[in-house]
Amino acid sequence: MTADWKALLLDLSGVLFDGRRPIDGAVAFMRRARQSGRPLRFVTNTATKPAATIVDEMRQMGFEASLEELFTAPRAAHDYIASRGLRPYCLVHPSIRPEFDDVPQTDPNCVLLGDARDELNYRNLNRAFRLLHAGAPLIGIGLNRYFMDEGGMMLDTGAFIRGLEWAAGIDAVIMGKPSAAFFAQVVADTGLSAGDCLMVGDDVVADVAGAVAAGLQGCLVRTGKFRPGDESALPQGAQVIDRIEELVLPGS
Amino acid sequence: MTADWKALLLDLSGVLFDGRRPIDGAVAFMRRARQSGRPLRFVTNTATKPAATIVDEMRQMGFEASLEELFTAPRAAHDYIASRGLRPYCLVHPSIRPEFDDVPQTDPNCVLLGDARDELNYRNLNRAFRLLHAGAPLIGIGLNRYFMDEGGMMLDTGAFIRGLEWAAGIDAVIMGKPSAAFFAQVVADTGLSAGDCLMVGDDVVADVAGAVAAGLQGCLVRTGKFRPGDESALPQGAQVIDRIEELVLPGS
Repeated sequence: MTADWKALLLDLSGVLFDGRRPIDGAVAFMRRARQSGRPLRFVTNTATKPAATIVDEMRQMGFEASLEELFTAPRAAHDYIASRGLRPYCLVHPSIRPEFDDVPQTDPNCVLLGDARDELNYRNLNRAFRLLHAGAPLIGIGLNRYFMDEGGMMLDTGAFIRGLEWAAGIDAVIMGKPSAAFFAQVVADTGLSAGDCLMVGDDVVADVAGAVAAGLQGCLVRTGKFRPGDESALPQGAQVIDRIEELVLPGS
Repeated sequence: MTADWKALLLDLSGVLFDGRRPIDGAVAFMRRARQSGRPLRFVTNTATKPAATIVDEMRQMGFEASLEELFTAPRAAHDYIASRGLRPYCLVHPSIRPEFDDVPQTDPNCVLLGDARDELNYRNLNRAFRLLHAGAPLIGIGLNRYFMDEGGMMLDTGAFIRGLEWAAGIDAVIMGKPSAAFFAQVVADTGLSAGDCLMVGDDVVADVAGAVAAGLQGCLVRTGKFRPGDESALPQGAQVIDRIEELVLPGS
């Protein structure tokens, strides 16, 4: 198989590493990818760590990465909220709350919902519901079903977004994958066309189908949260590889 | 308007009382309804109080009621689980947990989800998700969007059911309203046909549309959680009244 893409967009967790452990061959692959000279971007819905921490941890694992190459769903949500002058009720993980410190939050008129873990309790979800029921928009950080953690499968933000949407009879605005606007933002940053960009991820819906729907090429890896049967949701033309190290690089 | 029903099925909260306070005219209405001699049944998705407590509180408010007339979603769920020999992970309100004491619960092979309030935290919902993702069925106690409490609108179990269904890619079995099987169980107990039974409730979806879909007559009251605009979801032929005391009784 030859590579006909010019920029590579990589999901992080489950593609390059699991927890704090690099996936077999991923560090060496990343070195080869750098040598290819093609633009690299990192595209993640992770909402439990600030962007700077994500880059630090990647470097500690041996991956070369810069903040400028990293596109996170929380930062996209921040820009959406700030540009519209919204005042969010931030139901997000405590570790990313500082990323929203510059946004006014008293008397909230929207709900920002992310992978808030223990903050996703009945009291907080009910507060969010009341705002939504009164007409506030819901802004979701990603729309994933589950993710793979060191301890196993973990319920992700999408479940809470879908539940609140249903209860309040509304549709959320999704920041991050699989939002086409989010993919378009990353594509624009590469200076290339969407069709020249390849997105690789372990989430067949949010990563692969989302990217293909946004006009990119898509590739599913059989690591991370991948489970046999996921291929059935694969969009036409998308490729599947066992691990990121199998990805054919241009010119190789 | 004349009454062409032979048995009356009443939702409780929002129809006869709000919290511990009878709705205006409801106690006098119930006395007249008793005098009509027609069968009465109480049909509730309440999953925060044992059936005996519900009857006690009704009596304290001045409503004549018996356990035999009361059909609750938790009891329907109990019978469903016990008759199939299932071992539930009970994510229910602590106050109704004793109603499931006779059912084995170690090494669970199904998830029972109810209005568990503070038990609906991330840790417990994630435990439920893992069971569902591994193939266990989800049994929901009711499928309501929200309910009206003394403190205002409250997010109901349906949101958590819908969220888990979506994340695990499954369909829940719903016990209680709006399940047609649940309405059929109450109808059978009256000895009448579904078309001779009138269901009155403040939830246009779970009470009124659910009953009509199950072949009963339906009536929406503009008390409890009712909000202007709810009429748009009213099924054809269903009636609307401001309060339960306006309901026309047979022979009056």
